[in-house]
Amino acid sequence: MKKFINSTDALLKESLTGFGQAHADLVQVHFEPAYVTRAKPAQNKVAIVSGGGSGHEPLHAGYIGYGMLDAACPGQVFTSPTPDQMLAAAEVVHAGKGILFIVKNYAGDVMNFEMAAEMLPFDHATVLTSDDCAVINSTYTTGRRGVAGTVIVEKCVGSLAETGASLHACQLLGNKVNARTASIGVALTSCTVPAAGRPTFDISDSELEMGVGIHGEPGRRREAMREADSIVGDCVAAILADLKTTLENDTSKDILLLVNGLGATPLMELYLIYNTAAKLLGDAGLNISRSLVGNYTTAIDMAGASITVCLLDDEIRQHWDSPVHTPALRWGR
Amino acid sequence: MKKFINSTDALLKESLTGFGQAHADLVQVHFEPAYVTRAKPAQNKVAIVSGGGSGHEPLHAGYIGYGMLDAACPGQVFTSPTPDQMLAAAEVVHAGKGILFIVKNYAGDVMNFEMAAEMLPFDHATVLTSDDCAVINSTYTTGRRGVAGTVIVEKCVGSLAETGASLHACQLLGNKVNARTASIGVALTSCTVPAAGRPTFDISDSELEMGVGIHGEPGRRREAMREADSIVGDCVAAILADLKTTLENDTSKDILLLVNGLGATPLMELYLIYNTAAKLLGDAGLNISRSLVGNYTTAIDMAGASITVCLLDDEIRQHWDSPVHTPALRWGR
Repeated sequence: MKKFINSTDALLKESLTGFGQAHADLVQVHFEPAYVTRAKPAQNKVAIVSGGGSGHEPLHAGYIGYGMLDAACPGQVFTSPTPDQMLAAAEVVHAGKGILFIVKNYAGDVMNFEMAAEMLPFDHATVLTSDDCAVINSTYTTGRRGVAGTVIVEKCVGSLAETGASLHACQLLGNKVNARTASIGVALTSCTVPAAGRPTFDISDSELEMGVGIHGEPGRRREAMREADSIVGDCVAAILADLKTTLENDTSKDILLLVNGLGATPLMELYLIYNTAAKLLGDAGLNISRSLVGNYTTAIDMAGASITVCLLDDEIRQHWDSPVHTPALRWGR
Repeated sequence: MKKFINSTDALLKESLTGFGQAHADLVQVHFEPAYVTRAKPAQNKVAIVSGGGSGHEPLHAGYIGYGMLDAACPGQVFTSPTPDQMLAAAEVVHAGKGILFIVKNYAGDVMNFEMAAEMLPFDHATVLTSDDCAVINSTYTTGRRGVAGTVIVEKCVGSLAETGASLHACQLLGNKVNARTASIGVALTSCTVPAAGRPTFDISDSELEMGVGIHGEPGRRREAMREADSIVGDCVAAILADLKTTLENDTSKDILLLVNGLGATPLMELYLIYNTAAKLLGDAGLNISRSLVGNYTTAIDMAGASITVCLLDDEIRQHWDSPVHTPALRWGR
């Protein structure tokens, strides 16, 4: 294992310290317990708090700022944060209208955010993200996993919260976006967790993992490596099958297409994947009206990519388009 | 070699097509010859045209848009674009005040941009970037290589051009920024050029390449892998030595610190590098007043990073801060 680290113990603290300094205009990093808040706390709005294991950067701390999150609680690499982190963060960012937790559906995250919720002295609600259509249950999951679609949930709910909307309205929008979003990932290589010091799984030069999770969890099956169009075709087919019922009941065919790098995939390949996915989604009668391409939800240093489709409606489109000003996503102001 | 491609012949075209569709609000992609322009051509300003081999994305096409480039000419992976590309791009984006080429100092790029310049029917000038302080001459270079500091040159010159400044003024600013900028890179792994199908160089699990180029060219020396603080310390020392004379003559100690991923390095590690570099630069009496961390000038899928320091003055700081709206860099509007 070769990584730019000093020790696995110091990695999270040193990295968060650098993150806080590089974006001191936007965020403030706190330690013991570890959490990150906006540099300037917001007033009179639902406070949106997310978090999860580290190793998925820029998720979640990279999405703190106007129009998105109020705080994020980073655990150690691929390890859930603990309830004291969520409680400390909530105490700082609560702005009179309650706390909304956005939690990716992994057993440890769900349990620890639930424990924090039970102790919260504020109104609170939770949105669980579960956009990964690859598998139902998985290594760390009962039910579907939350992956890159989480970014879309956080963006839209964060936008609604800025308008002064209620906790209940924010929760409803989060659940709606999640229900209208499907993702699937493909790994060409494993990731390497620093504390483990070796790849999470073995994969040969002639194989790929279809439906991989963002911690290197198994997907649907190990398959033969082949040309991108064929891989992307299978991903798009899985997504369309997953969204079939909603698509049949929708009049709008507008979608947001997110092509996400898992950490070690060149942007040039991500745009090639986008090209093929866009063609296939267009052939299926869909209209790609919004796009995002890049490393938005990573699996440390995994070579791989995921494709996410969100079925837009007027409300979701409006909240996607609204201004956002965070370290990793910024437009409109 | 496992990559998301269909064929090495189709890679550039398919990737550029996806890029053009994903950012149709900002850019327009042209083929035969290949070049990328702004979606809405600018008026009455110096047109800034860059380009070079592909594989360094988002450099250069990702920097097309308001406040930065007017056009970019992508060659095949790690291969110079040809003069017909520059001529076609210049014809489309010329807006009455001349053409400024921004060219990274590699023999093929320099030769082909020079050939294009000789045939241009417009006023023209060139800025050569040469911020890499690792080595003087290299595989593809007479003189120093242009690397991630090119992004800073393109941002500042692009900003000045929007004000209606003259071709000469834009060239002077580009040369000034380049002279006040130093970079050095470190590779933990090689990159793999798709058409070659195998890693450009061999490196063991216990080694790093100090001073690597963005095509995998040799750096200063092969060294033992070690902790990040020691690696970053050597990088910062090289940069400070390179900028020594300017620093001694400057009253301002304000700098821009860019920590750049070469393609396969997790953001978490880049922020850790930033943390160490910031500490060392602070210890040297410098004030980091601007920061950028992420994949801005890549070497395909290389695990590695580079550190760039630009010595700010009021003019450079103003042009760095000004609004920019491109696929890869966006703020202020």
